[in-house]
Order: sequence, then C-alpha cells, then structure tokens
Amino acid sequence: MMQEMTRLGEQAKAAARTLGKSPPRAKTNALDCLAELLARREADVIAANRGDVEAARSAGLDKPRLDRLTLTPAILEEMRASCRHVAQLPDPVGVTESQWQRPNGLLVGRMRVPLGVIAIIYEARPNVTIDAAILCLKAGNAVILRGGSEALRSNMALAGLLGEALTRAGLPAGAAQLVPTTDRAAVTALCKLDQYIDVIIPRGGEGLVRAVTEAAVMPVLKHFRGVCHAYIDADADMAEALEIVFNGKVQRPGVCNALECLLVHQDIAARFLPLAAGKLGGARVEFRACPRSLPLLGPTAKAQEAQDLGQEFHDLILAVRVVDGLDAALDHIARYGSNHTEIVCTTNLDTARRFLREADASMVAVNASSRFNDGGQLGLGAEIGISTSKLHAYGPMGVQELTATKFVVIGQGQVRE
Amino acid sequence: MMQEMTRLGEQAKAAARTLGKSPPRAKTNALDCLAELLARREADVIAANRGDVEAARSAGLDKPRLDRLTLTPAILEEMRASCRHVAQLPDPVGVTESQWQRPNGLLVGRMRVPLGVIAIIYEARPNVTIDAAILCLKAGNAVILRGGSEALRSNMALAGLLGEALTRAGLPAGAAQLVPTTDRAAVTALCKLDQYIDVIIPRGGEGLVRAVTEAAVMPVLKHFRGVCHAYIDADADMAEALEIVFNGKVQRPGVCNALECLLVHQDIAARFLPLAAGKLGGARVEFRACPRSLPLLGPTAKAQEAQDLGQEFHDLILAVRVVDGLDAALDHIARYGSNHTEIVCTTNLDTARRFLREADASMVAVNASSRFNDGGQLGLGAEIGISTSKLHAYGPMGVQELTATKFVVIGQGQVRE
Repeated sequence: MMQEMTRLGEQAKAAARTLGKSPPRAKTNALDCLAELLARREADVIAANRGDVEAARSAGLDKPRLDRLTLTPAILEEMRASCRHVAQLPDPVGVTESQWQRPNGLLVGRMRVPLGVIAIIYEARPNVTIDAAILCLKAGNAVILRGGSEALRSNMALAGLLGEALTRAGLPAGAAQLVPTTDRAAVTALCKLDQYIDVIIPRGGEGLVRAVTEAAVMPVLKHFRGVCHAYIDADADMAEALEIVFNGKVQRPGVCNALECLLVHQDIAARFLPLAAGKLGGARVEFRACPRSLPLLGPTAKAQEAQDLGQEFHDLILAVRVVDGLDAALDHIARYGSNHTEIVCTTNLDTARRFLREADASMVAVNASSRFNDGGQLGLGAEIGISTSKLHAYGPMGVQELTATKFVVIGQGQVRE
Repeated sequence: MMQEMTRLGEQAKAAARTLGKSPPRAKTNALDCLAELLARREADVIAANRGDVEAARSAGLDKPRLDRLTLTPAILEEMRASCRHVAQLPDPVGVTESQWQRPNGLLVGRMRVPLGVIAIIYEARPNVTIDAAILCLKAGNAVILRGGSEALRSNMALAGLLGEALTRAGLPAGAAQLVPTTDRAAVTALCKLDQYIDVIIPRGGEGLVRAVTEAAVMPVLKHFRGVCHAYIDADADMAEALEIVFNGKVQRPGVCNALECLLVHQDIAARFLPLAAGKLGGARVEFRACPRSLPLLGPTAKAQEAQDLGQEFHDLILAVRVVDGLDAALDHIARYGSNHTEIVCTTNLDTARRFLREADASMVAVNASSRFNDGGQLGLGAEIGISTSKLHAYGPMGVQELTATKFVVIGQGQVRE
C-alpha cells in the first residue's frame, strides 16, 4: 500500500509543479470542460452512483448517510454550477499582494503561491469529490482524493471526468487523483508521505479528524465541532434578536454553524425568554434550561444537565442560560465554545466592541445570524471547510486559504553588510 | 511529567486569554521593563550563565556549542535592544485588516488575533529565551519555553526576569513560563497537550525538528534545511553576480541562508567561473565542481560527488554546476532545493519573471544576496524562525506570523434565507 500511495504522491508532486506555473486560462478551461463532461456523462455518473446506493442499502446504511451518498440530476446541476462559479473566481496565484522598499533599495513583495499537493480524506459524499477538487485546482494545487468506501463507484466515475477535463485543457491528469481502493491502510500511508503531500484535510466526524491528526506528519487543516452561542444583551433589539436566534437554531439544525446555546442577560430574560419560547417552541425546539431560565420557558422546557453545555446537538434542541452580564457570557464561551461561531445581539457599542474583540471564534458577529459563517455567505466564493484551529487559516477556507505567500525580492546587486 | 506539563498548559491558556485582550500599552510596558531588568540584574544572569558554561565545559561540550551557550555583556545589550525594538513595533492584535460589504448589507472584516499558546523547543542558546518570548508576547500569545538542558541555570534566571516584567506591567506571569526541568519526557508531554497549546515551534537540528513533528498533535511551525542556489544567467551582470555569490557564500557560511550551490548558464561559464574561482578562492572557498565546470575553476577545485548536490555544507564549500539554461536550473532547484532561498542574477526581464514565479522557495530574489532572507532584513522587524513549509507561514516569521485573523461580521439583524 505504501508503494501505491508513494506512486500517487510522486505523480501529484510532478503535476503540482506543472500546474503551479500554468496560466490562469488553462485552469479555467479545465473547470469549464468538467462542467460540460458532467452534463454529457450524467447518465454514466448516475448509473455508477446507483451501484453504490444499492450496495449501501443492502449493507444497511442509515437513511441520512444514504441521502448524502445519492446523486440526483439536481445535485449534478449544482456540481456543474460550482465548476462554472469557481472557474470565474479571480486566480490567486502569482499575484504580488503587497510590496515595500527597504532602506537599501530592495523591493520586497509577497507573492501568492499554491500550497503544492493537498490530500483530502472525506466521507461517502460524492459531491465533495468535485467541490474539493475544483477549489484545489483553481488555487494551483494537485489533489489526492480519498472518499468514503461506500462511494467508490461514484468517485471513480467522477475522477475519470476530472482526469479527462485536465487532459483536454493541456494539464496533467495527475493533478487530481482518486485513491482507487477502500483499504483503510491507504489513509495511514498518505499520512506519512510528507515528502510529497504538503497538507492533509480530513472532512468528517470527530473520530476521522482525530485519527488523521494523530497519524499525520504534515500539517492538517481540520474542523472539529461547532458549539455556537448567541448572547442576548440587556440592550438588545428584542424583535431582531428573536429572528436571529430562530434562524440560527431552526433553519438547518444539523450543520456546524447552527446555534446550540442561548445566553441571556438577566435584565432582559423575563421579557425575552417567553417570546423565544413561543417562537421557537412553535417550531418544535426543545429547551434545556438552567434554573433561572426554566420558569420562563413554559411547561415543555427541560431542566438542564451538565452535558447540555458545550454540546453540539445537531438537532432542534437549544441549551439556555441566564447570565449576569457580558463578562459571564464571555467566560461561558471561553469554557464551552469550540472556536467556531459566536454572536451577540446588542445596540450598545461598547458591548459589541468588547464581544467582537474578546470572543475567540473563527467568526464573531453582532446582530447577525450564526448561519453566515460559510465561505459563500462571507464572500469567499466557495469553501473547502471551516478551520477552527488558528494555524494556517481560521474560519471558512476558500481559494485564497489554499495558497501561501512567498517573499519576492527585486534587487540591483545588493549584498548584506 | 504529564501532570506538571498540564498545569503549565492550563496556566498558559488562562494567561493567553488575559493577554489577548490587554491594551497595547501593557505589552509595551512589559517589554521595556524587561530591558531595564536585564540591565539591573546583569550580574545575576552572567553568574547563572557561568555555572552553565563551567558545567558544560567539564562535560566536554564542543567549542561552537559552548560559544552559543555563553552570555556576555555585549549579548545582554543585544537582548535589551531587541526588547526595546520589539516593544516599538506596531501592535498587530485587534486590527481589522480588510473589510467588505455583502449584497445583504453585512459588513465582513478580518481582525488579527493572537494564536493563543505557543510552545518553543530550542537548543542551549539562552538569548533565544528572550528573543522568542518577546515576539510571542508582542503578538498577544502566552509562551512555554523549553531550552536545551545545558542552559537551564541561565534560562531560569532569564525566565525570572520575564515573570517579574510581566507582573510589573499588570500582566499574568503565566504568559511566559519556562519548563523547569531537563527531562526529555517534558517535550513528549508538551507535544500531546493540544487542548492547551495551539502551536509548537522546534528550533534546532533536523533530528529535533523531525522528532517534534512526529510526536506533536498540534500544528508545528518548522524550519528544516537551507540548501540555497544562485543561478547565473547568460544575461547576468558579471561584476554584480560575483559580489552576490561572494556575499552569499563567504559572509557567514554557517547559516541557513548561505549559498550552497552555484548554477551557471553554459554561455557565460567560461568567463564567469574563472573570476569566481579567483574571488572566492581568495577567501578559501572549496569548489565541488561538475565535469563541465571543473576545468574552469583552477587546480584546487574538486570533482563533484553525488552527495554534494542538495547538501547544506555549513562551511566554505560551494557546489558548482554548469547548466544548459533556465529550464535546467529550475529543474535542478526543484530536485535539490529545500524551499528556503533561491536567487537569479540576470538583466533579462523574462528570465527574472519566470525564475521569481517558478522557483519554489520561501524567498526568491533577482540580483540580490541570499543572505537577505531574514525577518530583520526583509522589514518584518524581527523573526522567530524561517518556515520552509507553506502551511501557516512561508519564510521569515515575524510578529504578524504569530497571529491569525478571525472573521468579524457587523449586521443589522440579517438572517440567512
């Protein structure tokens, strides 16, 4: 296995060198061509996916995972739209972002460069194969894709189209390679190949992320849990805060930027919580309430247990806690938050300023929904995941976060004294 | 040991939270106060260091390492100057670097934030204790210092001053802690504490860097070897190129940005190499020459062996190779370079443009010495090391590279549709 993965790594590294110096046009052409192929070969892809889905159903895969495994014409249309969208994003590579002059006349600049070779380990979601590959390619990186084993047939079909699109655009097919096996030893082998792979991105459950982090010798870009809080200040606009909390909890409770815990200032709790109980209760949200909030949330609220704090429910459940004020809210977030998304509802400038500065999360917001922590929503174009570690990137990672900068120096014969 | 390191980690994490929200003035005061203490307690520090040096000499430590271990009044004056210099650098924390507006009116910005807790593992060089700590503190990070065992007495004395300076400035002493033991198990324990430590920086030999990289579960900022090339193009200004090569090889051959290999275009080799032999030979540089360059470098040049390419000599030795042109030079660098520093001497715009774009190194330069790859020389103010990995940072890491950015969103009640 090590030998097979080494060969993949060598091909990726060679392809990365070619890709890194390719003109923007070649990458744009490859992505546009991929969109065309996804249309022309739709029947083949759907057929391959049907094989995966039938095998997974026979093996007893649960309904949510079967849903994520299944490709439909609508999902393929979304994949094509992503290709065309990412193709049109500005090409980051080769741009010198800032330049300054040293006292000796040297011009020093920072030029964007690709990271090199990116390996992505993900679950049985074949749309990720395309979404992840096109972002990596746009940023000039070669990519090694390792999807969940249930999706192997679908991924082989999609990887075939990726290779064809690259070749037609005059780029090396080695720039996007699928690991053609479901053997778990492949992941372990990839984690050791730091002479070929510059960064590894695990996308999936905490177990997968933890296993890759422990095995990998190259940098890991990871995203753990999203335990997101909303703090409703005494000076909040209550109607606005209610919409923001409703949106954060109800619009899509299964995702990482959904709200998990509501912190309410003691001076506003008696007015705000009954309104929240009415609006969110109407959407079947279950409250896990602290002793101070329990009497304010109506008869269906449950008393909070210790494990309800810092919990990612992934469901229509919301922990609620009344706090003495901003300091107590920030202490709670420092203890139970997951560095993902934290929001405050307030009309008070000093409260907003302190919360935005002191809450430690990849996105902090005042008077806006937690659901905006997303590369598309924040204007990055697209994203490959949300980093909750501060190293390399913090927050949604778009095309730019898949690059680095090198120092470029232009001299006229300067030497060091 | 795990228990002791966990306690250090807890204290560092708590201190990081306080430090991260401290006003710039408190950090400036701490660094200025440290400079004062380094003057007032100079005799104590020198006495502690004398104990280390005598013990190391008895134990038979070699001369270069004894030199690096020894503190003199001149080195202490340099440490004080560093404190005052870093104190005066702009404070990066809390600055929103860019801001844009989304179609729905959300204001999205990126605010600089500290990384959190940084652990630094380094060799027996007590000046690093101060240089590393002050950069981390300036960027708002708590730091855990683990220096080489031979320097423990010196480091204890310096860490005492760090703690005193922090306390006097109203900051938590836990923001800069020394691991108070020479037990190697401490390093292994630190590598596992990712719930407290955000990043680990090994500074030292390849063995140390490799061991930390393999053991660490948090991100590692590392700097491996510097195998730096100069490519002398057919269109080079020969007199200028000669000075640049001389400076790169001779000024300080033991450092990572010294030149190790000279690549010369075949059309200029017969004129350039005899001049290089005269000028560098006069400084006792030994040439390891390829078959085409050997006859041009005079009688003392040695025939090159395979291991001379890609070698970091750390000495007055230079590998020399005649190449057919730019493509061959770039191929050589892709194969033997170490992503550290690569330079080209040319007056041809297209050659310069291609080299700067295609050579993959943390600093690429045209017509300037490789010795400029240094945080101070490039204008970063100071540096904590030079990253040759592209993840988090690539090249010299100054105060800004010890921070991250978080997304800051200012809304007026926006929710996601």
